[in-house]
Amino acid sequence: MKNKQQEKRFYSKRKFMLEARNEAMKAVKSGDGGPFGAIIVKNGKIISKAHNMVIALNDPTAHAEVLAIRKACQKLKSYSLTECEIFSSCEPCPMCLSAIYWARIPKLYYGCTRDDAEKIGFDDNFLYKIFLGKRTKKNIKKQKIYRREILKIFKSWENKKDKILY
Amino acid sequence: MKNKQQEKRFYSKRKFMLEARNEAMKAVKSGDGGPFGAIIVKNGKIISKAHNMVIALNDPTAHAEVLAIRKACQKLKSYSLTECEIFSSCEPCPMCLSAIYWARIPKLYYGCTRDDAEKIGFDDNFLYKIFLGKRTKKNIKKQKIYRREILKIFKSWENKKDKILY
Repeated sequence: MKNKQQEKRFYSKRKFMLEARNEAMKAVKSGDGGPFGAIIVKNGKIISKAHNMVIALNDPTAHAEVLAIRKACQKLKSYSLTECEIFSSCEPCPMCLSAIYWARIPKLYYGCTRDDAEKIGFDDNFLYKIFLGKRTKKNIKKQKIYRREILKIFKSWENKKDKILY
Repeated sequence: MKNKQQEKRFYSKRKFMLEARNEAMKAVKSGDGGPFGAIIVKNGKIISKAHNMVIALNDPTAHAEVLAIRKACQKLKSYSLTECEIFSSCEPCPMCLSAIYWARIPKLYYGCTRDDAEKIGFDDNFLYKIFLGKRTKKNIKKQKIYRREILKIFKSWENKKDKILY
């Protein structure tokens, strides 16, 4: 019995990952964006599917994972996906991995890696290096200004009685 | 003359940062989301404004910077904001910082810091630690599966003649 269950899980994972691949293929065929797809699953059922649409939507944040998260949240009417899993055709970039954390998705399956993505011209690997503190020519310039004045907002937030933490 | 120009720039920066603060205040007052705001500027003019709307939109990716980027891209009809600057009331979380990189915005000004955000209950600092490879109880589980099969998509991408890299 245990083996059968394991086998079922195995086939489900494969099924979901192939769905993510199909989504990625849609992006390639349509020219909507980069070759990436993602699927969100809850209790063994697909809640949302998405492919990269950066070009089609003129939106640099329209990566497959971000779009799949947004769709799943709309469907479940919640900003939190604690009982879901995400299947991504490629290791998520830092934007998408952070989005997965913010959405509180506890489990991520992915196919290709950040190195594979780099080999076809994408910045995922570069971005991971930025977060490791590596300096490159492509680093953006950052400047902290007027912190004390802006910090007052956080006091207003702290004093707000009906605030919702996410 | 040079001093006057410098002074003008100084006041502009201050003006834009206070606009970002006003946006943050909107989020606090409305309850739309966390106390964060962002402004995108091109040639000294505000292109877009946004405040955090995670709660209002049921969208964990609806951070101020992400929303401001999306709006600016819609306005300029481009997925790239190479000639813009972004003013954020708080140091962007890794999702938003990555979005700024993907949008190719070369300059970021911010007010409060990731530590300030942590003190009022937000995960920004925790996420930065994740990217430094620190293990915590809150780490999500990641698993690479079926890489070889999925990698075929990247081959299709490489062979696509009219592909657009972003």
